[in-house]
Amino acid sequence: MPDENVVERVLPGGVRVFSEPLEEAQSIALGVWIRAGSRDEPEEVAGITHLMEHMLFKGTPSMDALGIAQAFESIGAQENAATSEEYTVLYARFLPEHLERALEIVSEMVREPTFADLEREREVIVEEIKMYEDRPDQMADEYLSSLIFHGDPLGRPVIGSVETVRGVDLDTIRTFHERTYTAPNVFVVGAGRLDPDRFAALVEERLGDLPQGTPFEREARPGRPESRFFYRHKETEQYHVALGARGVPASSEDRYAMAALSNVLGGGMSSRLFQEVREKRGLAYAVYAYHHGYSDTGAMRIYVGSTTKNVREAVKVIAHEIGRIQEEPVPEDELERTRQQLKSSTLLALESTSARMNRVGRSVVTGTELLSPEEMASRIEAVTADDVQRLAREYLDLEKIYLAAVGPEETDLGEYLQPEGVRRG
Amino acid sequence: MPDENVVERVLPGGVRVFSEPLEEAQSIALGVWIRAGSRDEPEEVAGITHLMEHMLFKGTPSMDALGIAQAFESIGAQENAATSEEYTVLYARFLPEHLERALEIVSEMVREPTFADLEREREVIVEEIKMYEDRPDQMADEYLSSLIFHGDPLGRPVIGSVETVRGVDLDTIRTFHERTYTAPNVFVVGAGRLDPDRFAALVEERLGDLPQGTPFEREARPGRPESRFFYRHKETEQYHVALGARGVPASSEDRYAMAALSNVLGGGMSSRLFQEVREKRGLAYAVYAYHHGYSDTGAMRIYVGSTTKNVREAVKVIAHEIGRIQEEPVPEDELERTRQQLKSSTLLALESTSARMNRVGRSVVTGTELLSPEEMASRIEAVTADDVQRLAREYLDLEKIYLAAVGPEETDLGEYLQPEGVRRG
Repeated sequence: MPDENVVERVLPGGVRVFSEPLEEAQSIALGVWIRAGSRDEPEEVAGITHLMEHMLFKGTPSMDALGIAQAFESIGAQENAATSEEYTVLYARFLPEHLERALEIVSEMVREPTFADLEREREVIVEEIKMYEDRPDQMADEYLSSLIFHGDPLGRPVIGSVETVRGVDLDTIRTFHERTYTAPNVFVVGAGRLDPDRFAALVEERLGDLPQGTPFEREARPGRPESRFFYRHKETEQYHVALGARGVPASSEDRYAMAALSNVLGGGMSSRLFQEVREKRGLAYAVYAYHHGYSDTGAMRIYVGSTTKNVREAVKVIAHEIGRIQEEPVPEDELERTRQQLKSSTLLALESTSARMNRVGRSVVTGTELLSPEEMASRIEAVTADDVQRLAREYLDLEKIYLAAVGPEETDLGEYLQPEGVRRG
Repeated sequence: MPDENVVERVLPGGVRVFSEPLEEAQSIALGVWIRAGSRDEPEEVAGITHLMEHMLFKGTPSMDALGIAQAFESIGAQENAATSEEYTVLYARFLPEHLERALEIVSEMVREPTFADLEREREVIVEEIKMYEDRPDQMADEYLSSLIFHGDPLGRPVIGSVETVRGVDLDTIRTFHERTYTAPNVFVVGAGRLDPDRFAALVEERLGDLPQGTPFEREARPGRPESRFFYRHKETEQYHVALGARGVPASSEDRYAMAALSNVLGGGMSSRLFQEVREKRGLAYAVYAYHHGYSDTGAMRIYVGSTTKNVREAVKVIAHEIGRIQEEPVPEDELERTRQQLKSSTLLALESTSARMNRVGRSVVTGTELLSPEEMASRIEAVTADDVQRLAREYLDLEKIYLAAVGPEETDLGEYLQPEGVRRG
């Protein structure tokens, strides 16, 4: 059952408009989505999609950077943007009376960036890269991506590197914009107190004549890295350890079962990893697991932060739990609590116009059918212990697990992920 | 004009109950607030309030730690807790039909913790401390607090230290609970689809007979540190620099003018620091300012993260802007945009039941009158350029500014905060 409250219109030029009218909402969340992300980039310009996102804010024919910021502020809009492996989104949330003006601002930004200050903005991104490098937990996560998706653009940092970002010149980014910000790649989502007909008409006025173009083709083709384990030295207090494996696409029939698997393993306070690593053994403060689906693949990720004294034991316990969920079916009462939790977090998220706007946008990007709340609930209900065990066996076999660690001393954490190691545990 | 939609009931035993009924909401956000925070702690047990918060989740007579987690999950509640300088709050968000059960769970946690696993939970907090120590931006912020509130408990980390946390034994924490979790210190807030009468009756049933006690007296008495500048070496990519000064209490008549001052300075993309440090000079990715009010004092904080090449210039520009906002009145168009932004972010926040619940709780803790949305808007409208300049002069005089930096080499950043340094700039 698709979500009939979300209305899709395809404008004559090809731009798609999605509206989710919500009478009880006080605001509108608006997003202009561009189906272009870091996975679509040639390696030598890695980070150009994210740099392009920054350039949207640097000026249009009628506004400089300050003018853009002031335009949003004078209608009290909260604006921001994000770039990921598969999309860029420019979004704003505001009171309903400002819809027309908000659309005018974001449309101008998307259509007519002047690329002012490119050189300076590249240096802002260099600072952003350095900021992430001071976050060891995020670094571990990046290294894990490069293991899981070895050799594929999905394994690269979205932000690129200092070298590739500094290498993007004015011609390159202009050409990127022309080829990428085209009708088939752009869609607009509005959720909140709006009228779908009026919304579509306003978008058509502003973005109806975007040029034609060709969408990126996507197919992840990761290879096998030489080692499943990666260590980087950093003078930190904790080891920051990211473990994971390939998962299922966002649109997979197994997506709710995969969500149940990650939730049982490390989704909340009653999850196995939280209980075994933190509650019963006091080995970590932060330990969790989650699954993220892309268009054509996915990744299951586990994180634990733990000091030298505790980190080996923490990883050993995690490996044991990964093994156990493959060997023993999840008991019905545990699975039922996970279903409740998934249903409830799905429903509670729908209270926010921003969350709704993002839900629609991500479903379009990943080609995932947008289901009604009732249908989502019934799909979650339908997840069985067999499904969870089947997915655990298929995706979390210990030999398919990768591990990346950032910490103060070279480690042998990988040994706990050898099937032998677990048997010894 | 107080917010008449928020209903206060004082139960016979003294516990206060606040309800904010919202017909259009899909959920209820529930918070049990305890007016006890790190500023109320003797130095030798610093962090005991936060440790107590952890212990709430470790067991009650009818539930162990896993049982508590499962209890929340079986009603699909999203639960969490937080401890700050002035309060602990235990909160949950859930669908309206689960109100009674949710209250039963949180009441049992607050009334009857069994203090199981104290020793192990102390080690979890040691891991949490180590995790924060790997966040150089947060460390800089902690060091800044210790300068602004030198010698006062407000200047200490909420979490305590490894030594003080390990020093809390079973007797100490039991006594802390008995003296602190008492009727005058506890209040309950519910926001969302609820009926105030029924809500008050349910709270009375569960928490009506909490023991009597004496609230903590609070009066910040910070001294002057030997130096206004603090540096800590860490092998980071960026310098993480926190600057700030004392501010106004949350309940101050000047609170909206102070919000305008921090917003003009570093509140958003059109703010002076964002424009001057990032947009015009490319010296940083993250640069912002905000003001936080406590019961009897406050703090204005500015953050910038910047590499060795850029950090001196970034701090110099910040010092210059701090000087300029004292010397020149903010132009009316700039102030008007700030008013719009403050009004709008105030109104947009009201869409979330959790944000509403937190707003009520913090206003009670800080003794700040809860105003209706219209009254907040009109107070924001009433802020003048004179107000902003007066506050800038009173609170941001360069000689009152403190600076803490974490980074790879000893710095002389303090020199930019000498009045001379600015004139030279």
